[in-house]
Amino acid sequence: MRRKDSEMGGTDVGLRDIDDLPKNKVNYTALTPLWFLERAATVYPERLSIVHGSVKHTWGQTYSRCRQLASALSRRSFGIGTTVSIIAPNIPALYEAHFAVPMTGSVINPINIRLNAETVSFLLKHSSTSVVMVDQEYFTLAMDALNILAAEMDKNNNPPLVIVIGDENCDPKPLQRALKERGVLEYENFLQSGDPEFKWVPPEDEWQSIALGYTSGTTSSPKGVVLSHRGAHLSSLGGILMWGMLEGSIYLWTLPLFHCNGWCFVWALAALCGTSICLRNVSAKAIYLAIANQGVTHFCAAPTVLSTILNASSNDTILPLPRKVDVMTAGAAPQPLVLAGLSRLGFRITHTYGLSETYGPSTVCTWKPEWDDLPSDTRVRLHARQGVRYISMEVVDVVDMTTMDPVPADGKTLGEIVFRGNMIMKGYLKNPEANNEAFKNGWYHSGDLGVKHLDGYIEVKDRAKDIIISGGENISSLEVEKVVFSHPAVLETSVIAREDEKWGESPCAFVTVRENHNNNAVNEVELAEDIIKLCKKKLPAFWVPKSIVFLSSLPKTATGKVQKHVLRSRVKELGPVRRRSNL
Amino acid sequence: MRRKDSEMGGTDVGLRDIDDLPKNKVNYTALTPLWFLERAATVYPERLSIVHGSVKHTWGQTYSRCRQLASALSRRSFGIGTTVSIIAPNIPALYEAHFAVPMTGSVINPINIRLNAETVSFLLKHSSTSVVMVDQEYFTLAMDALNILAAEMDKNNNPPLVIVIGDENCDPKPLQRALKERGVLEYENFLQSGDPEFKWVPPEDEWQSIALGYTSGTTSSPKGVVLSHRGAHLSSLGGILMWGMLEGSIYLWTLPLFHCNGWCFVWALAALCGTSICLRNVSAKAIYLAIANQGVTHFCAAPTVLSTILNASSNDTILPLPRKVDVMTAGAAPQPLVLAGLSRLGFRITHTYGLSETYGPSTVCTWKPEWDDLPSDTRVRLHARQGVRYISMEVVDVVDMTTMDPVPADGKTLGEIVFRGNMIMKGYLKNPEANNEAFKNGWYHSGDLGVKHLDGYIEVKDRAKDIIISGGENISSLEVEKVVFSHPAVLETSVIAREDEKWGESPCAFVTVRENHNNNAVNEVELAEDIIKLCKKKLPAFWVPKSIVFLSSLPKTATGKVQKHVLRSRVKELGPVRRRSNL
Repeated sequence: MRRKDSEMGGTDVGLRDIDDLPKNKVNYTALTPLWFLERAATVYPERLSIVHGSVKHTWGQTYSRCRQLASALSRRSFGIGTTVSIIAPNIPALYEAHFAVPMTGSVINPINIRLNAETVSFLLKHSSTSVVMVDQEYFTLAMDALNILAAEMDKNNNPPLVIVIGDENCDPKPLQRALKERGVLEYENFLQSGDPEFKWVPPEDEWQSIALGYTSGTTSSPKGVVLSHRGAHLSSLGGILMWGMLEGSIYLWTLPLFHCNGWCFVWALAALCGTSICLRNVSAKAIYLAIANQGVTHFCAAPTVLSTILNASSNDTILPLPRKVDVMTAGAAPQPLVLAGLSRLGFRITHTYGLSETYGPSTVCTWKPEWDDLPSDTRVRLHARQGVRYISMEVVDVVDMTTMDPVPADGKTLGEIVFRGNMIMKGYLKNPEANNEAFKNGWYHSGDLGVKHLDGYIEVKDRAKDIIISGGENISSLEVEKVVFSHPAVLETSVIAREDEKWGESPCAFVTVRENHNNNAVNEVELAEDIIKLCKKKLPAFWVPKSIVFLSSLPKTATGKVQKHVLRSRVKELGPVRRRSNL
Repeated sequence: MRRKDSEMGGTDVGLRDIDDLPKNKVNYTALTPLWFLERAATVYPERLSIVHGSVKHTWGQTYSRCRQLASALSRRSFGIGTTVSIIAPNIPALYEAHFAVPMTGSVINPINIRLNAETVSFLLKHSSTSVVMVDQEYFTLAMDALNILAAEMDKNNNPPLVIVIGDENCDPKPLQRALKERGVLEYENFLQSGDPEFKWVPPEDEWQSIALGYTSGTTSSPKGVVLSHRGAHLSSLGGILMWGMLEGSIYLWTLPLFHCNGWCFVWALAALCGTSICLRNVSAKAIYLAIANQGVTHFCAAPTVLSTILNASSNDTILPLPRKVDVMTAGAAPQPLVLAGLSRLGFRITHTYGLSETYGPSTVCTWKPEWDDLPSDTRVRLHARQGVRYISMEVVDVVDMTTMDPVPADGKTLGEIVFRGNMIMKGYLKNPEANNEAFKNGWYHSGDLGVKHLDGYIEVKDRAKDIIISGGENISSLEVEKVVFSHPAVLETSVIAREDEKWGESPCAFVTVRENHNNNAVNEVELAEDIIKLCKKKLPAFWVPKSIVFLSSLPKTATGKVQKHVLRSRVKELGPVRRRSNL
């Protein structure tokens, strides 16, 4: 809209010239995280980029290796339109593939290592995978998946190229067998077939796809979340800014790299010229050792890893910490007691929230300095909130699910958490129906229910599908979990809707019990009574669990999220809660 | 390029689906720094955004005031296609205009307050300015410029709307007179005519222009550098990352905001939810006082301001500093002795380099921790280099001026410093010839000459036009300046090519002398001899200045750069250096 003629005037010559300066190749370049790597290798060629047991690479080496891998892939004609899948824990090859694959124009699809062969086969087929890179430990999984795929496929289709990644920190025999019996390629050899001076080019269009990642698919087939070079660039820098990371941070990989590309920190670390410390197997002891011996300053962790650290036996801990360690958590609101406990140990917890569809975390509970002086329980309450938008996510709001109007900022009115901005996925692969649903009414719909507090911070109350509707009233399973968890004998809990003859649904609490707890309860019945007594004290009567089920452990996804759908099946087996007269 | 069919195969069904997910309004938003302000006001509504003497605003207030100003401008039909010029020192209104003006779709044109009325009138005309905002101190300058403009303009053109900004820290009389006699609008009143809840919209296209800024035009008419919303967003975040700034930084405005939009820190501070401390008049004492009393953590300063701080009398300093203070400098390489001196005082100097055409600094001498232990003179030598590219500037290189090939990284071979990437201006306003020149051969041409060191760091040796060509050999005036400056009696120096009968050109050093220096020279002749003796010891014979001219002060631009063109006129008046026999 050009300024209208008006009495206010001004000279009118060439007013539009100021926007008549088109983009050219000098002043406009596609945003992509690939440039971060080139810069790290230029500025810090000798600094450690990644450490994995005895393997240590510098940024100069990592850049060379990535260009070699890109070159080797390109020489075999893999480029735009190719999907390269990789099945690996947090090892250097998985880090390298995040740069090398997009350097060729291909899309990287990191696959969750805890999936079964059927699911992996579904993902390989759905993603039209042309290359499968697989860590030696998961070779059998990959071959099983490929066999299922081969049985289903037309004979005219060539099977994907398989590259096995050896690990000098592992037993070499399975790798040797695989190479011998199957005649597949070995990663380091494949690398050697490429040119370390490969001239990669950034994408023509920053909207080009860089990565694909499948959601866990608890309710339907897994959905393939497609991400762009632009979004990956902006989300990586957003993560750095929101966490206050500085150049040269030393980052420990406890969060799986296959989970939302490690929340984009895979690329952010190149932007920071930082150092990645790998962990094949995550344990409290391994985390504490890395902090003590490798200078770790930052790590990301699902709430379950936080509990592991907090509840580690004293043999496994190195306390006091040699420095403040920054921990970012997301995935589910951490329990207040975990937050409080870790703060006491010297971990600085940054609580974030996001989804695969938002490039990982996209809101952060920005901690205000003035909160430091508040009483502990207030601090924990403030900290448990999911907070405010990332700087690279333009809008987040909580809206009424029918009118789509923002809910009042009262900390009470429940609505759906919705987003808009540059940290939203391109869409789901080959799933127009799911895309229509996800993007309807001009918002990305998280499916999470929450409230907006007076200070603008949002708080997740539940997944839309985890809400328990009892006598027509909403019960937040998360709120019930908080109270159950506050019982000193409870190690973990998950609260699920159970069919209820009288109320429609009522809460059922699954509980694992802390070893050597001091509770007086002599058996599970007494303990259940004690937990219910606590709930009655702290919750509205109809929110109190009507049933408690003790388990030795809760079923979890690869990323440590409780698999509520598994518990829901258990609940179905239990049948409905009978009317009171029958209890 | 789609993957070619090859023996390596892979399933070929729907390979291109992965890029067939178009942008939509949910997952794509124009990049603009305007969102930073909205976020700061949401997260920290009560934190100080800006302090100017007795005036203190919070982020909530600044956001309201910006929306009011945007609304008031919009209500008068100023929007896309409008240029709003503003003539002001570093005061809150200038900060606010950087958000409010683009909120309407207009372009902000901050004008250097040290220009004369003729030049200001040229800028107003060339930029097709519709609104002039002017600080009360510069009201006469603005009116003089507008009078010149009115005399030149067609009667059918309405003169620009004038808004005078009062300052409660200043004498109110000139403002009262202006309002009475001229009938112009007053800023706070104008603000009141707008809606503090104004619903601004981000630009449809992130390439839309956000700001215009005129170069000083030492050789030709000033050129109008046009910047985009996208570039401003990326450059702001780049500055934060390269300087390692953290949320809540407290920033002192010594660098004029009208200079490259304060190197984009005007917007970066909103991204950081930081606090701006204004200074109407920059002096060593004012800087030290702000550090002591207002918690200043960061400021930017031209080299001349650095000298001022270093050479401040002990009455004006507050030492030791209460905290490490981060100082970013650019504009010309700071003298090694200044760098060393300020480091000793506890200032942490970040040396950067850039131009108006690159949104301000776009390379940084990234300081490596391992350099801390090097001998002082090595550190100073490393630190004086202009360094490596910003993370948001994709390519910087040094190229041979005829072949355009990169020069070897040998620290010796001179070439032109060239750029490519998202921190390059859209172009010069209404100046296709200058644009062709600036963007020729696929590079942005800085016009600066430099070398690339073995470690990839670049170092500016001279402006292309400042190089001295003596007997066909290049002499870097900058290198000669370094040696002259190292003489203990020299306060400032600038070295210029002087016509030379024998050599074509030879160096002429302009020098200002330090008060109460301890040199034995009893007069200028003896001092000149002493300086030349030093140069002979440290420089190739033909680099030694053939003439030394003592001045009481060097002519400088508003941003503290030495005006070499003024000195060049002086040199012309001196006439050529005669052949040795005539000396």
